[in-house]
Amino acid sequence: MGIIVQKFGGTSVATPERIHKAAQKIIAAKKAGNQVVVVVSAMGHTTDELVELANKVWGDSPGQPPKREMDQLLATGEQVTIALLAMALHAQGHEAISFTGGQIGLITDENFSKARVKEIAHEKIIKELDAGKIVIVAGFQGITAGGDVTTLGRGGSNATLVAIGAVLHADVCENYTDVAGIFTADPRVVPDARLIREISYDEMMELSSVGASVLQTRAVEFAKKYNVTIHVRSSQTDEPGTLIVAETPAMEHIVVSGCALKKDLTRVTLKAIPDRPGVVAQIFSAVGAANVVVDDIIQTVTPEGANISFTVEHGDVADLKVVVEQQVKEIGGGTAVFDTNLAKVSVVGVGMKQSTGVAAKMFGALAREKVNIQNISTSEIRISCIIAKSDADKALRAVHGAFELGEK
Amino acid sequence: MGIIVQKFGGTSVATPERIHKAAQKIIAAKKAGNQVVVVVSAMGHTTDELVELANKVWGDSPGQPPKREMDQLLATGEQVTIALLAMALHAQGHEAISFTGGQIGLITDENFSKARVKEIAHEKIIKELDAGKIVIVAGFQGITAGGDVTTLGRGGSNATLVAIGAVLHADVCENYTDVAGIFTADPRVVPDARLIREISYDEMMELSSVGASVLQTRAVEFAKKYNVTIHVRSSQTDEPGTLIVAETPAMEHIVVSGCALKKDLTRVTLKAIPDRPGVVAQIFSAVGAANVVVDDIIQTVTPEGANISFTVEHGDVADLKVVVEQQVKEIGGGTAVFDTNLAKVSVVGVGMKQSTGVAAKMFGALAREKVNIQNISTSEIRISCIIAKSDADKALRAVHGAFELGEK
Repeated sequence: MGIIVQKFGGTSVATPERIHKAAQKIIAAKKAGNQVVVVVSAMGHTTDELVELANKVWGDSPGQPPKREMDQLLATGEQVTIALLAMALHAQGHEAISFTGGQIGLITDENFSKARVKEIAHEKIIKELDAGKIVIVAGFQGITAGGDVTTLGRGGSNATLVAIGAVLHADVCENYTDVAGIFTADPRVVPDARLIREISYDEMMELSSVGASVLQTRAVEFAKKYNVTIHVRSSQTDEPGTLIVAETPAMEHIVVSGCALKKDLTRVTLKAIPDRPGVVAQIFSAVGAANVVVDDIIQTVTPEGANISFTVEHGDVADLKVVVEQQVKEIGGGTAVFDTNLAKVSVVGVGMKQSTGVAAKMFGALAREKVNIQNISTSEIRISCIIAKSDADKALRAVHGAFELGEK
Repeated sequence: MGIIVQKFGGTSVATPERIHKAAQKIIAAKKAGNQVVVVVSAMGHTTDELVELANKVWGDSPGQPPKREMDQLLATGEQVTIALLAMALHAQGHEAISFTGGQIGLITDENFSKARVKEIAHEKIIKELDAGKIVIVAGFQGITAGGDVTTLGRGGSNATLVAIGAVLHADVCENYTDVAGIFTADPRVVPDARLIREISYDEMMELSSVGASVLQTRAVEFAKKYNVTIHVRSSQTDEPGTLIVAETPAMEHIVVSGCALKKDLTRVTLKAIPDRPGVVAQIFSAVGAANVVVDDIIQTVTPEGANISFTVEHGDVADLKVVVEQQVKEIGGGTAVFDTNLAKVSVVGVGMKQSTGVAAKMFGALAREKVNIQNISTSEIRISCIIAKSDADKALRAVHGAFELGEK
């Protein structure tokens, strides 16, 4: 008998009907002879609605609602789903028991709104599984050692999935979503994109970080650390999806596994700032202190002073503007320009490590489509190009075609 | 510096605007130099909506959703309110911290859906009060020693209010509601009903048990046991309402303090059950084990066997049906008939102990209105008559008038 941990995202539990559909998948896994633990997200748009309610209460007060209270609020979303799913399973004749993050002792640090899992007291889960029950756990949430409710940030339910899979030494963590798995590119942009049957942790992490939104980098990192297999698959069918596993020698023969697009980039350019030692360090330490992740930094020196540009995600722009304006004032000169019309196209593959000519092939494909490359960044298994947002879709199709990633 | 525990019911926190209004009352109590603990209910109709969602998931499956999961579900309602109220207080410039029942260690028995408070680990509340914060606690909910979420049943938030008031030795427990206080009768039925300024615990318990819905018997019983003063008052004004306190000699001069109506009664009649020793005991111990409170029991013996009838609240009928059908099967005979067209009109007053002719005056008032009395029950300070539901309102007005309880 194996242990399977399943996760159903918000759209897969958005209505009583879908909750029953999820229950059927759970029961099928149980009937196949497995012990089953299920992690669920809040129903549909519940989390957004709760955030909106908090914003109404907060009104135009300065700053933001206290994060501890925001987490106390948001954690209710998943608690509703676990109870309803347990009821659905009972209604279909199967014993099930629901637990909040706190109830199974999913202990996190005190970093409200993006807490990290520290430990899971899994005895309670084991006890209920051994009693023949299906165990349902609220995703996205935990509790501090002091008993405060925390949430795990964007994609937190996947972090819960993998953490529980790790602590139970599960055979597989099944991530049920509204897509069939991980594709060689976003099928909405590239019609002949192909479902990837197997992908390594490192490739998945790179794809996530450059735009593949199904799984968050953090969850995959955790899965790699504990060697947990993740199966990304559709909640609408019984077809197998994509297995995310440790790298195998066979994978090295695939030069490029997939490509991705990121459209939510803003480039900040600081123009004509005083060109003296320490200025750049001062700016970036202030940006880092504001918890803003920067990428693709370029510095050029002109007679008027230095120009520095870097890219950030749109979501960080509000925080960043405050910091940048403050810094321009402090260093006594320069202007800040924000450009939101950018995108990033990337190719990822572990085979790149042993292969040559990958960059040349990518740049050639973009050149043939007259896509101007504004900046390039790479890792051992990834090449990314910053381009105009208006070129984004055609760039992705060009790159996908050049590496022959589509359906044969 | 005193300790005040305030409670805001569902209608008083139904919208962000009302939450801010409640916050103003809380801040006023704090500014007056008190330490303030606040107990809140779920917003508006949240609990009903959650029950409806559960019923949708349960569909037409036999029986009812598991009570443990129902409590897990319903407890989210209050958790939403505590977080939002804490945000509102922060937005108005005051430090506040929210706690679920579980977080303050409000330990209950394992009687899901109507659990009883066993203890409150109040150290956490004291610590935060001493740090100058306003402490907000989710009403209606607790946690078992094993960590399962429980709810305290109808009016559970009042139980939380009084339990916290008792454990903190609060100066007063303020129960903010959408009415001005306790009236001599329901003003919606009796237009000249008068606000009672002071009432004894025993009178309030009797009035609650026979239909005054503002405060539950259990909460008042608890308040009496720990000598906690409850102040029932309006959340819409600053006017004082009704104080519920220990009996004073002056109260004995008031023969009847108030009267009340209960319309949510179902009479169960078990017809033609085998008339042998132990059968009745067996039935009622099964009913008791299901936590159903019965009232007004009548037994008659006919040639076909015994007939037993008793009244219960509508809310208990679903639980009761299961028990009764099981019992009828076990004892081998009889049929169960449910009648929902009943009401109960009652008069209450500590002065009754020293007074005569109260019953005669009540029966006379009903007779003049041609209201047929189907059954009578009494306590030392109460007289109740079971009547047809169609006579209910006119019966209440007749009794209220006969004892001259209205505005002079």
